[in-house]
Amino acid sequence: MRNIRLRLAYDGTRYVGWQVQPNGQSVQACLEQAIEQLTGTATRVTAAGRTDSGVHAVGQVANFATASNIPCSNIRSGLQHFLPDEIVVVEVDEVSEEFHATYSATGKWYRYVIHNARPRHPFLGNYAWQYEADLDIEAMQAAAERLIGTHDFRAFETQHPNRASSVRTVDRLDVTRHDQFSTWSLWPVDTEPVTDNGPFIWIDIAADGFLYNMVRAITGTLVQVGRGRMTADQLAAVLADGTRDDAGETAPACGLYLMRVEYDGETIASPDPGSS
Amino acid sequence: MRNIRLRLAYDGTRYVGWQVQPNGQSVQACLEQAIEQLTGTATRVTAAGRTDSGVHAVGQVANFATASNIPCSNIRSGLQHFLPDEIVVVEVDEVSEEFHATYSATGKWYRYVIHNARPRHPFLGNYAWQYEADLDIEAMQAAAERLIGTHDFRAFETQHPNRASSVRTVDRLDVTRHDQFSTWSLWPVDTEPVTDNGPFIWIDIAADGFLYNMVRAITGTLVQVGRGRMTADQLAAVLADGTRDDAGETAPACGLYLMRVEYDGETIASPDPGSS
Repeated sequence: MRNIRLRLAYDGTRYVGWQVQPNGQSVQACLEQAIEQLTGTATRVTAAGRTDSGVHAVGQVANFATASNIPCSNIRSGLQHFLPDEIVVVEVDEVSEEFHATYSATGKWYRYVIHNARPRHPFLGNYAWQYEADLDIEAMQAAAERLIGTHDFRAFETQHPNRASSVRTVDRLDVTRHDQFSTWSLWPVDTEPVTDNGPFIWIDIAADGFLYNMVRAITGTLVQVGRGRMTADQLAAVLADGTRDDAGETAPACGLYLMRVEYDGETIASPDPGSS
Repeated sequence: MRNIRLRLAYDGTRYVGWQVQPNGQSVQACLEQAIEQLTGTATRVTAAGRTDSGVHAVGQVANFATASNIPCSNIRSGLQHFLPDEIVVVEVDEVSEEFHATYSATGKWYRYVIHNARPRHPFLGNYAWQYEADLDIEAMQAAAERLIGTHDFRAFETQHPNRASSVRTVDRLDVTRHDQFSTWSLWPVDTEPVTDNGPFIWIDIAADGFLYNMVRAITGTLVQVGRGRMTADQLAAVLADGTRDDAGETAPACGLYLMRVEYDGETIASPDPGSS
Protein backbone atom coordinates (compact mmCIF):
# COMPACT_ATOMS: atom_id res chain seq x y z
CA MET A 1 0.00 0.00 0.00
CA ARG A 2 1.18 3.52 -0.78
CA ASN A 3 0.92 6.21 1.88
CA ILE A 4 -0.29 9.46 0.30
CA ARG A 5 0.07 12.83 2.02
CA LEU A 6 -2.13 15.80 1.15
CA ARG A 7 -1.79 19.47 1.91
CA LEU A 8 -5.25 21.00 2.05
CA ALA A 9 -6.77 24.47 2.26
CA TYR A 10 -10.44 24.95 2.98
CA ASP A 11 -13.12 27.41 3.90
CA GLY A 12 -14.70 25.93 7.01
CA THR A 13 -17.82 28.09 6.96
CA ARG A 14 -20.28 25.54 5.60
CA TYR A 15 -18.79 22.50 7.35
CA VAL A 16 -19.26 20.89 10.74
CA GLY A 17 -15.46 20.80 10.94
CA TRP A 18 -12.81 18.34 9.84
CA GLN A 19 -14.25 15.27 11.49
CA VAL A 20 -17.25 13.25 10.32
CA GLN A 21 -20.29 14.22 12.41
CA PRO A 22 -23.90 13.06 12.29
CA ASN A 23 -25.28 16.60 11.95
CA GLY A 24 -23.78 17.95 8.76
CA GLN A 25 -21.14 17.86 6.07
CA SER A 26 -17.52 17.44 7.20
CA VAL A 27 -14.31 18.10 5.30
CA GLN A 28 -13.19 14.54 6.08
CA ALA A 29 -16.35 13.03 4.57
CA CYS A 30 -15.99 15.13 1.40
CA LEU A 31 -12.41 14.00 1.02
CA GLU A 32 -13.18 10.34 1.68
CA GLN A 33 -15.98 10.45 -0.91
CA ALA A 34 -13.62 12.04 -3.43
CA ILE A 35 -10.96 9.38 -2.82
CA GLU A 36 -13.52 6.63 -3.25
CA GLN A 37 -14.74 8.20 -6.48
CA LEU A 38 -11.17 8.45 -7.74
CA THR A 39 -9.81 5.06 -6.64
CA GLY A 40 -12.95 2.97 -6.36
CA THR A 41 -12.09 1.98 -2.79
CA ALA A 42 -13.62 3.23 0.47
CA THR A 43 -10.73 4.88 2.29
CA ARG A 44 -10.19 6.43 5.70
CA VAL A 45 -8.32 9.77 5.84
CA THR A 46 -6.46 11.09 8.87
CA ALA A 47 -5.66 14.79 9.43
CA ALA A 48 -3.13 16.64 11.55
CA GLY A 49 -5.65 18.94 13.19
CA ARG A 50 -9.35 18.34 13.80
CA THR A 51 -10.52 21.83 12.97
CA ASP A 52 -13.94 22.79 14.37
CA SER A 53 -17.00 24.01 12.53
CA GLY A 54 -16.30 27.39 10.91
CA VAL A 55 -12.52 27.11 11.38
CA HIS A 56 -10.48 27.46 8.18
CA ALA A 57 -7.30 25.81 6.98
CA VAL A 58 -4.54 27.08 4.76
CA GLY A 59 -2.07 24.27 5.48
CA GLN A 60 -3.93 21.25 6.85
CA VAL A 61 -2.08 17.96 6.32
CA ALA A 62 -3.79 14.58 5.87
CA ASN A 63 -2.80 11.10 4.73
CA PHE A 64 -4.39 7.91 3.48
CA ALA A 65 -3.33 4.44 2.34
CA THR A 66 -4.13 3.26 -1.16
CA ALA A 67 -3.37 0.37 -3.50
CA SER A 68 -3.98 2.66 -6.47
CA ASN A 69 -1.14 3.39 -8.91
CA ILE A 70 -2.40 6.84 -9.85
CA PRO A 71 0.54 9.30 -9.94
CA CYS A 72 0.50 12.02 -7.28
CA SER A 73 -0.13 14.88 -9.69
CA ASN A 74 -3.19 13.07 -11.02
CA ILE A 75 -4.38 12.36 -7.50
CA ARG A 76 -4.30 16.11 -6.93
CA SER A 77 -6.30 17.02 -10.02
CA GLY A 78 -8.57 14.00 -9.68
CA LEU A 79 -9.52 14.72 -6.07
CA GLN A 80 -10.02 18.37 -6.91
CA HIS A 81 -12.44 17.36 -9.63
CA PHE A 82 -14.63 15.53 -7.09
CA LEU A 83 -14.31 18.06 -4.26
CA PRO A 84 -16.47 21.13 -3.63
CA ASP A 85 -14.85 24.46 -4.44
CA GLU A 86 -14.21 25.37 -0.80
CA ILE A 87 -11.78 22.47 -0.35
CA VAL A 88 -8.55 22.76 -2.31
CA VAL A 89 -5.86 20.09 -2.59
CA VAL A 90 -2.70 22.18 -2.66
CA GLU A 91 -0.09 19.44 -2.83
CA VAL A 92 0.15 15.65 -2.95
CA ASP A 93 3.19 13.50 -2.27
CA GLU A 94 3.98 9.91 -1.36
CA VAL A 95 5.58 9.35 2.04
CA SER A 96 6.99 6.44 3.99
CA GLU A 97 4.64 3.92 5.56
CA GLU A 98 5.43 5.24 9.05
CA PHE A 99 4.08 8.71 8.35
CA HIS A 100 0.84 9.51 10.25
CA ALA A 101 -0.62 12.99 9.79
CA THR A 102 -1.73 13.21 13.43
CA TYR A 103 0.90 11.35 15.40
CA SER A 104 3.93 12.35 13.33
CA ALA A 105 3.16 16.06 13.71
CA THR A 106 5.70 17.82 15.91
CA GLY A 107 4.15 21.26 15.80
CA LYS A 108 1.38 23.43 14.38
CA TRP A 109 0.95 27.06 13.60
CA TYR A 110 -2.46 28.75 13.87
CA ARG A 111 -3.39 32.32 13.04
CA TYR A 112 -6.32 34.16 14.55
CA VAL A 113 -7.51 37.22 12.57
CA ILE A 114 -9.38 40.10 14.21
CA HIS A 115 -10.84 42.94 12.15
CA ASN A 116 -10.51 45.80 14.62
CA ALA A 117 -12.32 48.66 12.89
CA ARG A 118 -15.57 50.54 12.52
CA PRO A 119 -17.80 49.99 10.64
CA ARG A 120 -17.77 46.23 10.35
CA HIS A 121 -16.75 44.83 7.00
CA PRO A 122 -19.55 43.21 4.99
CA PHE A 123 -17.26 40.64 3.34
CA LEU A 124 -15.58 39.40 6.52
CA GLY A 125 -18.42 37.87 8.50
CA ASN A 126 -17.05 34.36 8.00
CA TYR A 127 -13.34 35.21 7.92
CA ALA A 128 -12.45 37.34 10.93
CA TRP A 129 -13.68 38.32 14.39
CA GLN A 130 -15.03 41.80 13.87
CA TYR A 131 -14.19 43.68 17.05
CA GLU A 132 -15.03 47.36 17.00
CA ALA A 133 -13.57 48.61 20.30
CA ASP A 134 -9.97 49.83 20.38
CA LEU A 135 -7.42 47.13 21.25
CA ASP A 136 -3.94 47.89 22.59
CA ILE A 137 -1.76 45.36 20.82
CA GLU A 138 1.39 46.35 22.69
CA ALA A 139 -0.29 45.29 25.92
CA MET A 140 -1.52 42.13 24.19
CA GLN A 141 1.97 41.27 22.97
CA ALA A 142 3.51 41.88 26.42
CA ALA A 143 0.91 39.57 28.01
CA ALA A 144 1.28 37.00 25.23
CA GLU A 145 4.93 36.56 26.13
CA ARG A 146 3.88 35.19 29.52
CA LEU A 147 2.36 32.22 27.68
CA ILE A 148 5.48 31.33 25.71
CA GLY A 149 7.26 28.20 26.93
CA THR A 150 6.08 24.95 28.52
CA HIS A 151 3.01 25.34 30.73
CA ASP A 152 -0.16 23.57 31.79
CA PHE A 153 -2.69 25.36 29.58
CA ARG A 154 -5.86 23.92 31.17
CA ALA A 155 -7.16 27.47 31.79
CA PHE A 156 -7.34 27.84 28.00
CA GLU A 157 -9.23 24.66 27.22
CA THR A 158 -13.03 24.85 26.93
CA GLN A 159 -13.63 21.14 27.43
CA HIS A 160 -11.45 18.75 29.34
CA PRO A 161 -11.44 15.53 27.37
CA ASN A 162 -9.81 12.49 28.90
CA ARG A 163 -6.21 13.42 28.19
CA ALA A 164 -2.97 12.42 29.79
CA SER A 165 -1.77 15.97 30.07
CA SER A 166 -2.74 19.56 29.32
CA VAL A 167 0.91 20.63 29.24
CA ARG A 168 1.98 22.15 25.94
CA THR A 169 4.96 24.15 24.69
CA VAL A 170 4.23 27.43 22.92
CA ASP A 171 7.20 28.38 20.77
CA ARG A 172 5.94 31.61 19.38
CA LEU A 173 3.06 33.99 20.09
CA ASP A 174 3.02 37.17 18.02
CA VAL A 175 0.38 39.89 18.05
CA THR A 176 0.75 42.24 15.09
CA ARG A 177 -1.28 44.81 13.15
CA HIS A 178 -1.70 44.87 9.38
CA ASP A 179 -3.28 46.99 6.69
CA GLN A 180 -4.48 44.01 4.76
CA PHE A 181 -5.88 40.67 5.36
CA SER A 182 -8.34 40.53 2.81
CA THR A 183 -10.55 42.62 0.59
CA TRP A 184 -8.73 45.78 1.45
CA SER A 185 -8.05 46.85 -2.05
CA LEU A 186 -11.82 46.69 -2.48
CA TRP A 187 -12.42 48.98 0.41
CA PRO A 188 -11.61 52.54 -0.54
CA VAL A 189 -14.35 53.91 1.71
CA ASP A 190 -13.54 55.53 4.98
CA THR A 191 -13.20 52.80 7.50
CA GLU A 192 -12.00 54.10 10.80
CA PRO A 193 -8.74 52.32 11.57
CA VAL A 194 -8.39 52.10 15.31
CA THR A 195 -4.67 52.77 15.11
CA ASP A 196 -2.38 54.05 12.38
CA ASN A 197 -1.14 50.55 11.74
CA GLY A 198 -4.06 48.93 10.00
CA PRO A 199 -7.35 47.39 11.03
CA PHE A 200 -6.24 43.75 11.17
CA ILE A 201 -4.77 42.04 14.17
CA TRP A 202 -3.08 38.71 13.60
CA ILE A 203 -2.41 36.45 16.56
CA ASP A 204 0.10 33.84 15.40
CA ILE A 205 0.66 30.89 17.72
CA ALA A 206 3.06 28.01 17.10
CA ALA A 207 3.19 25.13 19.58
CA ASP A 208 4.00 21.43 19.80
CA GLY A 209 0.27 20.78 20.18
CA PHE A 210 -2.97 22.49 21.13
CA LEU A 211 -5.75 21.71 23.59
CA TYR A 212 -9.38 21.96 22.55
CA ASN A 213 -10.20 25.59 21.67
CA MET A 214 -6.82 26.73 23.04
CA VAL A 215 -6.11 29.35 20.37
CA ARG A 216 -9.61 30.77 20.63
CA ALA A 217 -9.45 30.89 24.45
CA ILE A 218 -6.03 32.58 24.37
CA THR A 219 -7.38 35.06 21.79
CA GLY A 220 -10.43 35.88 23.90
CA THR A 221 -8.18 36.44 26.90
CA LEU A 222 -5.66 38.60 25.03
CA VAL A 223 -8.59 40.73 23.83
CA GLN A 224 -9.44 41.37 27.48
CA VAL A 225 -5.85 42.53 27.92
CA GLY A 226 -6.18 44.70 24.80
CA ARG A 227 -9.25 46.34 26.31
CA GLY A 228 -7.36 47.12 29.51
CA ARG A 229 -9.53 44.75 31.56
CA MET A 230 -6.71 42.34 32.43
CA THR A 231 -3.01 42.92 33.05
CA ALA A 232 -0.13 40.70 31.94
CA ASP A 233 0.34 39.71 35.59
CA GLN A 234 -3.30 38.74 35.88
CA LEU A 235 -3.01 36.66 32.71
CA ALA A 236 0.04 34.91 34.14
CA ALA A 237 -1.98 34.19 37.30
CA VAL A 238 -4.84 32.72 35.22
CA LEU A 239 -2.31 30.44 33.52
CA ALA A 240 -0.86 29.39 36.87
CA ASP A 241 -4.27 28.80 38.51
CA GLY A 242 -5.63 26.80 35.59
CA THR A 243 -9.26 27.87 35.99
CA ARG A 244 -11.05 28.29 32.65
CA ASP A 245 -13.62 30.75 34.05
CA ASP A 246 -10.87 33.22 34.95
CA ALA A 247 -9.70 33.48 31.35
CA GLY A 248 -11.51 35.38 28.58
CA GLU A 249 -14.28 34.16 26.33
CA THR A 250 -13.66 31.69 23.51
CA ALA A 251 -13.23 33.80 20.37
CA PRO A 252 -15.49 32.94 17.41
CA ALA A 253 -14.43 30.09 15.11
CA CYS A 254 -14.55 32.20 11.92
CA GLY A 255 -11.29 34.06 12.69
CA LEU A 256 -9.17 30.92 13.10
CA TYR A 257 -6.88 29.45 10.44
CA LEU A 258 -4.67 26.37 10.62
CA MET A 259 -1.65 27.74 8.80
CA ARG A 260 0.94 24.97 8.77
CA VAL A 261 1.83 21.65 10.34
CA GLU A 262 5.40 20.75 11.20
CA TYR A 263 6.92 17.31 10.96
CA ASP A 264 10.34 16.26 12.12
CA GLY A 265 12.92 17.24 9.60
CA GLU A 266 10.54 19.65 7.94
CA THR A 267 10.56 23.22 9.15
CA ILE A 268 7.33 24.96 9.86
CA ALA A 269 7.27 28.26 7.99
CA SER A 270 8.11 31.12 10.28
CA PRO A 271 4.98 33.05 11.15
CA ASP A 272 6.65 36.19 9.88
CA PRO A 273 3.78 38.44 8.83
CA GLY A 274 5.95 40.28 6.35
CA SER A 275 6.81 37.25 4.33
CA SER A 276 3.41 35.70 3.87
CA MET B 1 -39.95 65.47 4.62
CA ARG B 2 -36.21 65.02 4.96
CA ASN B 3 -34.29 63.34 2.13
CA ILE B 4 -31.73 60.93 3.59
CA ARG B 5 -28.82 59.59 1.55
CA LEU B 6 -27.02 56.37 2.48
CA ARG B 7 -23.72 54.96 1.35
CA LEU B 8 -23.89 51.17 1.58
CA ALA B 9 -21.50 48.24 1.29
CA TYR B 10 -22.79 44.71 1.06
CA ASP B 11 -21.92 41.13 0.31
CA GLY B 12 -24.36 40.13 -2.41
CA THR B 13 -23.80 36.37 -2.10
CA ARG B 14 -26.95 35.48 -0.18
CA TYR B 15 -29.23 38.01 -1.85
CA VAL B 16 -31.34 38.02 -5.01
CA GLY B 17 -29.79 41.41 -5.72
CA TRP B 18 -30.67 44.97 -4.79
CA GLN B 19 -34.24 44.95 -5.96
CA VAL B 20 -37.20 43.30 -4.23
CA GLN B 21 -37.96 39.97 -5.93
CA PRO B 22 -40.55 37.29 -5.23
CA ASN B 23 -37.94 34.49 -5.01
CA GLY B 24 -35.64 35.51 -2.18
CA GLN B 25 -34.21 38.13 0.12
CA SER B 26 -33.15 41.44 -1.46
CA VAL B 27 -30.90 44.16 -0.10
CA GLN B 28 -33.66 46.69 -0.72
CA ALA B 29 -36.18 44.70 1.35
CA CYS B 30 -33.71 44.35 4.24
CA LEU B 31 -33.10 48.07 4.21
CA GLU B 32 -36.78 48.98 3.97
CA GLN B 33 -37.55 46.68 6.91
CA ALA B 34 -34.74 48.27 8.94
CA ILE B 35 -36.02 51.78 8.17
CA GLU B 36 -39.54 50.80 9.20
CA GLN B 37 -38.22 49.28 12.42
CA LEU B 38 -36.26 52.45 13.15
CA THR B 39 -38.81 55.09 12.16
CA GLY B 40 -42.10 53.23 12.51
CA THR B 41 -43.10 54.11 8.96
CA ALA B 42 -43.13 51.91 5.84
CA THR B 43 -40.64 53.58 3.49
CA ARG B 44 -39.52 53.05 -0.09
CA VAL B 45 -35.74 53.20 -0.76
CA THR B 46 -34.17 53.97 -4.13
CA ALA B 47 -30.60 52.97 -5.12
CA ALA B 48 -28.16 54.20 -7.73
CA GLY B 49 -27.45 50.74 -9.17
CA ARG B 50 -29.70 47.69 -9.20
CA THR B 51 -26.98 45.16 -8.51
CA ASP B 52 -27.83 41.57 -9.50
CA SER B 53 -27.81 38.46 -7.37
CA GLY B 54 -24.29 37.71 -6.16
CA VAL B 55 -22.94 41.14 -7.11
CA HIS B 56 -21.30 43.06 -4.27
CA ALA B 57 -21.20 46.74 -3.40
CA VAL B 58 -18.57 48.82 -1.71
CA GLY B 59 -20.06 52.23 -2.54
CA GLN B 60 -23.75 51.81 -3.37
CA VAL B 61 -25.81 54.99 -2.82
CA ALA B 62 -29.48 55.02 -1.85
CA ASN B 63 -31.98 57.56 -0.58
CA PHE B 64 -35.34 57.72 1.15
CA ALA B 65 -37.79 60.32 2.42
CA THR B 66 -38.71 60.44 6.09
CA ALA B 67 -40.62 62.64 8.52
CA SER B 68 -38.45 61.34 11.36
CA ASN B 69 -36.20 63.74 13.29
CA ILE B 70 -33.54 61.15 14.12
CA PRO B 71 -30.05 62.67 13.58
CA CYS B 72 -28.03 61.16 10.73
CA SER B 73 -25.43 59.51 12.95
CA ASN B 74 -28.19 57.74 14.86
CA ILE B 75 -29.84 56.70 11.61
CA ARG B 76 -26.56 55.00 10.72
CA SER B 77 -26.19 53.09 13.97
CA GLY B 78 -29.92 52.41 14.21
CA LEU B 79 -30.21 50.94 10.73
CA GLN B 80 -27.05 48.91 11.32
CA HIS B 81 -28.64 47.46 14.42
CA PHE B 82 -31.57 46.12 12.40
CA LEU B 83 -29.59 45.00 9.34
CA PRO B 84 -27.90 41.63 8.74
CA ASP B 85 -24.12 41.63 9.03
CA GLU B 86 -23.53 41.49 5.28
CA ILE B 87 -25.11 44.91 4.75
CA VAL B 88 -23.16 47.81 6.20
CA VAL B 89 -24.32 51.44 6.34
CA VAL B 90 -21.07 53.31 5.78
CA GLU B 91 -22.31 56.87 5.79
CA VAL B 92 -25.58 58.82 6.21
CA ASP B 93 -26.26 62.42 5.29
CA GLU B 94 -29.21 64.68 4.59
CA VAL B 95 -29.49 66.05 1.06
CA SER B 96 -31.74 68.44 -0.82
CA GLU B 97 -35.24 67.36 -1.80
CA GLU B 98 -34.19 67.15 -5.47
CA PHE B 99 -31.60 64.42 -4.90
CA HIS B 100 -32.59 61.05 -6.37
CA ALA B 101 -30.05 58.21 -6.04
CA THR B 102 -30.85 56.80 -9.49
CA TYR B 103 -31.65 59.82 -11.63
CA SER B 104 -29.14 62.23 -10.11
CA ALA B 105 -26.23 59.84 -10.70
CA THR B 106 -23.86 61.12 -13.38
CA GLY B 107 -21.47 58.17 -13.35
CA LYS B 108 -20.55 54.89 -11.74
CA TRP B 109 -17.41 52.91 -11.20
CA TYR B 110 -17.44 49.11 -11.14
CA ARG B 111 -14.54 46.75 -10.49
CA TYR B 112 -14.41 43.18 -11.72
CA VAL B 113 -11.94 40.91 -9.88
CA ILE B 114 -10.42 37.81 -11.48
CA HIS B 115 -8.27 35.40 -9.47
CA ASN B 116 -5.90 34.18 -12.20
CA ALA B 117 -3.92 31.43 -10.47
CA ARG B 118 -3.63 27.73 -9.83
CA PRO B 119 -4.83 26.15 -7.63
CA ARG B 120 -8.13 27.89 -7.02
CA HIS B 121 -8.48 29.73 -3.73
CA PRO B 122 -10.88 28.16 -1.23
CA PHE B 123 -11.91 31.49 0.29
CA LEU B 124 -12.71 33.30 -2.95
CA GLY B 125 -15.58 31.29 -4.39
CA ASN B 126 -18.03 34.13 -3.77
CA TYR B 127 -15.64 37.03 -4.29
CA ALA B 128 -13.78 36.61 -7.58
CA TRP B 129 -13.93 34.77 -10.89
CA GLN B 130 -11.35 32.04 -10.50
CA TYR B 131 -9.76 31.67 -13.91
CA GLU B 132 -6.83 29.27 -14.05
CA ALA B 133 -5.52 29.69 -17.63
CA ASP B 134 -2.90 32.35 -18.29
CA LEU B 135 -4.30 35.77 -19.28
CA ASP B 136 -2.27 38.39 -21.15
CA ILE B 137 -3.34 41.63 -19.51
CA GLU B 138 -1.34 43.81 -21.88
CA ALA B 139 -3.46 42.51 -24.75
CA MET B 140 -6.57 42.98 -22.60
CA GLN B 141 -5.63 46.60 -21.80
CA ALA B 142 -4.91 47.38 -25.47
CA ALA B 143 -8.30 45.98 -26.49
CA ALA B 144 -10.05 47.71 -23.57
CA GLU B 145 -8.96 51.07 -24.93
CA ARG B 146 -11.11 50.46 -28.01
CA LEU B 147 -14.16 50.61 -25.73
CA ILE B 148 -13.32 53.96 -24.17
CA GLY B 149 -15.49 56.84 -25.34
CA THR B 150 -19.11 57.13 -26.47
CA HIS B 151 -20.42 54.02 -28.25
CA ASP B 152 -23.53 51.93 -28.70
CA PHE B 153 -22.76 49.06 -26.31
CA ARG B 154 -25.63 46.75 -27.31
CA ALA B 155 -23.13 43.94 -28.04
CA PHE B 156 -22.35 43.96 -24.31
CA GLU B 157 -25.90 43.80 -23.00
CA THR B 158 -27.36 40.37 -22.20
CA GLN B 159 -30.99 41.44 -22.31
CA HIS B 160 -32.40 44.31 -24.31
CA PRO B 161 -35.01 45.92 -22.12
CA ASN B 162 -37.19 48.60 -23.60
CA ARG B 163 -34.72 51.44 -23.48
CA ALA B 164 -34.40 54.64 -25.40
CA SER B 165 -30.75 54.06 -26.13
CA SER B 166 -27.87 51.66 -25.56
CA VAL B 167 -25.31 54.42 -26.10
CA ARG B 168 -23.05 54.98 -23.12
CA THR B 169 -19.79 56.82 -22.47
CA VAL B 170 -16.94 54.85 -20.89
CA ASP B 171 -14.51 57.27 -19.26
CA ARG B 172 -11.99 54.78 -17.97
CA LEU B 173 -11.24 51.10 -18.48
CA ASP B 174 -8.13 49.81 -16.72
CA VAL B 175 -6.87 46.22 -16.61
CA THR B 176 -4.21 45.74 -13.94
CA ARG B 177 -2.54 42.95 -11.97
CA HIS B 178 -2.15 42.87 -8.18
CA ASP B 179 -0.60 40.78 -5.50
CA GLN B 180 -3.51 41.19 -3.17
CA PHE B 181 -7.16 41.41 -3.26
CA SER B 182 -8.01 39.49 -0.34
CA THR B 183 -6.82 36.74 1.93
CA TRP B 184 -3.33 36.92 0.55
CA SER B 185 -1.58 37.33 3.79
CA LEU B 186 -3.30 34.10 4.76
CA TRP B 187 -1.93 32.28 1.79
CA PRO B 188 1.74 31.48 2.33
CA VAL B 189 1.43 28.20 0.41
CA ASP B 190 2.81 27.94 -3.07
CA THR B 191 0.16 29.22 -5.39
CA GLU B 192 1.36 29.44 -8.92
CA PRO B 193 1.08 33.07 -9.98
CA VAL B 194 0.53 33.18 -13.70
CA THR B 195 2.79 36.19 -14.06
CA ASP B 196 5.27 37.91 -11.81
CA ASN B 197 2.80 40.63 -11.09
CA GLY B 198 0.34 38.91 -8.84
CA PRO B 199 -2.62 36.59 -9.25
CA PHE B 200 -5.38 39.20 -9.22
CA ILE B 201 -6.67 41.03 -12.25
CA TRP B 202 -8.82 44.08 -11.63
CA ILE B 203 -10.94 45.45 -14.46
CA ASP B 204 -12.01 48.96 -13.43
CA ILE B 205 -14.71 50.57 -15.56
CA ALA B 206 -16.14 54.06 -15.04
CA ALA B 207 -18.98 55.25 -17.26
CA ASP B 208 -21.94 57.62 -17.29
CA GLY B 209 -24.19 54.60 -17.08
CA PHE B 210 -24.24 50.85 -17.70
CA LEU B 211 -26.48 48.52 -19.68
CA TYR B 212 -27.72 45.27 -18.16
CA ASN B 213 -24.71 42.99 -17.48
CA MET B 214 -22.43 45.35 -19.40
CA VAL B 215 -19.41 45.03 -17.09
CA ARG B 216 -19.72 41.25 -16.99
CA ALA B 217 -20.06 41.00 -20.78
CA ILE B 218 -17.06 43.29 -21.32
CA THR B 219 -15.08 41.20 -18.81
CA GLY B 220 -15.98 37.93 -20.53
CA THR B 221 -14.91 39.42 -23.85
CA LEU B 222 -11.64 40.84 -22.53
CA VAL B 223 -10.85 37.39 -21.12
CA GLN B 224 -11.16 36.01 -24.67
CA VAL B 225 -8.62 38.64 -25.70
CA GLY B 226 -6.40 37.65 -22.77
CA ARG B 227 -6.50 34.04 -23.96
CA GLY B 228 -5.42 35.10 -27.46
CA ARG B 229 -8.77 34.07 -28.95
CA MET B 230 -9.80 37.57 -30.02
CA THR B 231 -7.75 40.55 -31.18
CA ALA B 232 -8.32 44.20 -30.31
CA ASP B 233 -9.49 44.76 -33.89
CA GLN B 234 -11.99 41.93 -33.58
CA LEU B 235 -13.27 43.40 -30.33
CA ALA B 236 -13.70 46.77 -32.02
CA ALA B 237 -15.66 45.01 -34.78
CA VAL B 238 -17.92 43.33 -32.21
CA LEU B 239 -18.60 46.74 -30.69
CA ALA B 240 -19.38 48.21 -34.13
CA ASP B 241 -21.62 45.31 -35.21
CA GLY B 242 -23.59 45.26 -31.97
CA THR B 243 -24.30 41.51 -31.94
CA ARG B 244 -24.24 40.03 -28.43
CA ASP B 245 -23.35 36.52 -29.65
CA ASP B 246 -20.09 37.77 -31.15
CA ALA B 247 -18.84 39.00 -27.78
CA GLY B 248 -17.56 36.80 -24.94
CA GLU B 249 -19.54 35.08 -22.22
CA THR B 250 -21.08 36.98 -19.32
CA ALA B 251 -18.57 36.70 -16.46
CA PRO B 252 -19.92 35.33 -13.14
CA ALA B 253 -21.66 37.76 -10.77
CA CYS B 254 -19.39 36.99 -7.81
CA GLY B 255 -16.43 38.98 -9.19
CA LEU B 256 -18.34 42.24 -9.62
CA TYR B 257 -18.27 45.17 -7.19
CA LEU B 258 -20.06 48.51 -7.42
CA MET B 259 -17.27 50.72 -6.16
CA ARG B 260 -18.57 54.28 -6.27
CA VAL B 261 -21.37 56.43 -7.65
CA GLU B 262 -20.71 59.93 -8.94
CA TYR B 263 -23.09 62.86 -8.62
CA ASP B 264 -22.70 66.27 -10.17
CA GLY B 265 -20.34 68.36 -8.14
CA GLU B 266 -19.00 65.28 -6.35
CA THR B 267 -16.00 63.59 -7.84
CA ILE B 268 -15.98 59.84 -8.22
CA ALA B 269 -12.84 58.49 -6.61
CA SER B 270 -10.24 57.72 -9.23
CA PRO B 271 -10.01 53.98 -9.82
CA ASP B 272 -6.34 54.18 -8.99
CA PRO B 273 -5.42 50.73 -7.72
CA GLY B 274 -2.53 52.10 -5.72
CA SER B 275 -4.63 54.38 -3.59
CA SER B 276 -7.40 52.05 -2.57
